[in-house]
Amino acid sequence: MNPTEYLSANDARIHEELFDFLRIPSVSARSEHAKDVARGAEWVATSLRNAGLDAKVHSTAGHPVVVGEWRRAGAGAPTILVYGHYDVQPAEPLDLWQSPPFEPTIRDGRIYARGSVDDKGQLFLHVKALEAHLKTRGTLPVNVIVLAEGEEEVGSEHLAEFIESHKDLLRCDGVIISDSAMFAPGLPSILSSLRGLAYFQIDVRGPSGDLHSGSYGGAVVNPAMALARILATFHDADGRIAIPGFYDAVRDWPENVRAQMRALPFTDEGFRHEVGAPALGGEKGYTTLERIWTRPTCEVNGLLSGYTGEGAKTVLPAVAMAKVSCRLVPDQDPKEIERLMKAHIERVAPKGVTVTVTHLHGGRPWRADLDGPLFDAAKRALKAAFGREPVITGEGGSIPVVGDFQRILGAPVLLVGFGLPGENAHAPNEWMSDENFVKGMRAIAELWDEIGKGR
Amino acid sequence: MNPTEYLSANDARIHEELFDFLRIPSVSARSEHAKDVARGAEWVATSLRNAGLDAKVHSTAGHPVVVGEWRRAGAGAPTILVYGHYDVQPAEPLDLWQSPPFEPTIRDGRIYARGSVDDKGQLFLHVKALEAHLKTRGTLPVNVIVLAEGEEEVGSEHLAEFIESHKDLLRCDGVIISDSAMFAPGLPSILSSLRGLAYFQIDVRGPSGDLHSGSYGGAVVNPAMALARILATFHDADGRIAIPGFYDAVRDWPENVRAQMRALPFTDEGFRHEVGAPALGGEKGYTTLERIWTRPTCEVNGLLSGYTGEGAKTVLPAVAMAKVSCRLVPDQDPKEIERLMKAHIERVAPKGVTVTVTHLHGGRPWRADLDGPLFDAAKRALKAAFGREPVITGEGGSIPVVGDFQRILGAPVLLVGFGLPGENAHAPNEWMSDENFVKGMRAIAELWDEIGKGR
Repeated sequence: MNPTEYLSANDARIHEELFDFLRIPSVSARSEHAKDVARGAEWVATSLRNAGLDAKVHSTAGHPVVVGEWRRAGAGAPTILVYGHYDVQPAEPLDLWQSPPFEPTIRDGRIYARGSVDDKGQLFLHVKALEAHLKTRGTLPVNVIVLAEGEEEVGSEHLAEFIESHKDLLRCDGVIISDSAMFAPGLPSILSSLRGLAYFQIDVRGPSGDLHSGSYGGAVVNPAMALARILATFHDADGRIAIPGFYDAVRDWPENVRAQMRALPFTDEGFRHEVGAPALGGEKGYTTLERIWTRPTCEVNGLLSGYTGEGAKTVLPAVAMAKVSCRLVPDQDPKEIERLMKAHIERVAPKGVTVTVTHLHGGRPWRADLDGPLFDAAKRALKAAFGREPVITGEGGSIPVVGDFQRILGAPVLLVGFGLPGENAHAPNEWMSDENFVKGMRAIAELWDEIGKGR
Repeated sequence: MNPTEYLSANDARIHEELFDFLRIPSVSARSEHAKDVARGAEWVATSLRNAGLDAKVHSTAGHPVVVGEWRRAGAGAPTILVYGHYDVQPAEPLDLWQSPPFEPTIRDGRIYARGSVDDKGQLFLHVKALEAHLKTRGTLPVNVIVLAEGEEEVGSEHLAEFIESHKDLLRCDGVIISDSAMFAPGLPSILSSLRGLAYFQIDVRGPSGDLHSGSYGGAVVNPAMALARILATFHDADGRIAIPGFYDAVRDWPENVRAQMRALPFTDEGFRHEVGAPALGGEKGYTTLERIWTRPTCEVNGLLSGYTGEGAKTVLPAVAMAKVSCRLVPDQDPKEIERLMKAHIERVAPKGVTVTVTHLHGGRPWRADLDGPLFDAAKRALKAAFGREPVITGEGGSIPVVGDFQRILGAPVLLVGFGLPGENAHAPNEWMSDENFVKGMRAIAELWDEIGKGR
């Protein structure tokens, strides 16, 4: 029996085990579920041991981290780390669930349960792929570490610290994460980029207190108007960011990746309908997906000044505030963007107001090396399991742990996910496609073989 | 004895009476003071009767209106209406008063009490000037109506209605109001203009709900950024309003009035210090006082969009709102400004968002006819009482009753006030200069003589 045959033969038991895992309400955000989170960690450790790995539950200042290890690939063999999380989002509002969130139910080929796709199902398919190898061949082509955390849904507060303080334990040559979605049903996907972030607060101060807009208006610079005029300098008429130097570090995407992105099953009209806006917009010369995945942004996230209640109040406000954030793409650096933003605002701020720019939060962008051996192996494994070439996708948001792994462990990260659009990851009626769960297991089982072939 | 000698001879009694008036806590905003407000109305009526007028307290849906009349000037004599208010602002916070708000106290030549300058002292000096004429000469050169309302501090809610429904009673050839301030101590002032108002709310709507700024940012038009870009089109680089047609109805001020305004004892540095701004600003080519008194504005009064709490939240907001108001100068019309504003915004609003402009509130600007006989008489009377030529001043805000009188009664309005800068009209420790109270009485007594000479 090869690993794939093993997975087929054990399909019913594997599903039963997954359902056991999904029944644990390991809600990391709620203190009343702390014991359930701990139980989830123990469950993962037991599952790893059953699969043939050594496993240990590490306590942290927050919820535990589970580390499984199999290191018998032999002298000089590389090590691959698999990351996932066993904690889940809160299930509320409960009355919107069609079946109870912690009583997994299959309907229309979907496994409904809180955590089904985010991320228990995707973590567990890795455990089962490893089990399939160890139970059939008794070995793996590389050393394997499985790291399962219990705080992903509350910001992975202690993870970077854990990786840092367990660098020797976690040293590896590649990281695999399955916590994302395929672009469309039947379309295996490798997530190749994440945008970074530079988040600012801009405070504009004018007069020492609010003034009567009649008695003073016209002779005092209005901080809210000054703020609007500053914000309006951030883009040119083509939607391009007009902060000098902003694009200096932006790397162009290879034409073949852009061409593949343009070929994805996607329509602007469908996207426009999804967001509910009267029309789309953005930087001239790029498609919608390119704008979200490959181009940086400068957005207003919040505005506050003066009187905002009902009706009319004739105040000339003393202060005005904007939250502004830039999504960054490789190789933009949040620190450098902070410098450029501050220099630009200093240049354009009108006299008569004092402007303060505070950098609240920053994160680096990430882009996969699409030519590495791990990626080649993943492409072949996904094709074998899903019957078609995987597509390269991007993500406009951030997944901070990706940067942590790459930075602290210096290993390339492969993001291969088996979710689907509309899976309600943080909403009621979360589901995972059962087909994707099964094919995902097979794909990962193939992946270990492909990684072995590459050696 | 002439009226001036009468005022001198009765100075002690007049002060005692004023203090009685100031002791009545006629706070129109507080229902617990409703009886005090009614008592204030009766007190004014009695005082008018003692001066030699007929007087009646008219009840309204709110606080009473007192009307005094003296109509024995003879066939064909014109009628002058004196307006004032006997209600006062709340006195709170009480602990900041150096002497009790309703126990008038003279310190350093100032009469400290709630309502001393706003407007009881100024209303009462008119009553005493009339008394001085009627007690010494037994007559007045014109018919006189005194209208004292009790709702000025709560928006004069029922006054326009009262004037409208008592048009015959109140028909007159001129209105005198003393409820404003002199430009500086010793400098008698005629307030010659008020700005109007067109107050808008601008609502910008983009996507149907807030979006994640990572997953969508760059491909969806950001309503907060769109709003900022719209607001930034309202002025050009010289601080001039760039809404097409905005200045079409603006009348230039006569050069001699501008020259007189430039000669007023005023420094930009003093004004800048008063408002506490790092620098002043405004429309190029005009002085600070001209900017406030003679030029229209377009100000942001409020801004609200997205996340405005502490820290960073990566939201692409669905909506953004601005409160924007234009101060208007003669002959701008709020309705026309609404039309221009809406047309401008329609022109500059970017695709991808829906913009709604709502006109919340409008008021016409006002400018006195500086060449009428009432003004000539006032100038001579003020010079006689204060020993120097009065100055012409403006006001950047609005006094809605001025428009009401002019519109409903069709009579020119003379605004001659005896307050002073820093008099704390709506704050603790309100005061009126005793010198101005005394000279104000004399000036108004002179005014009746001057009006008589003009006939």
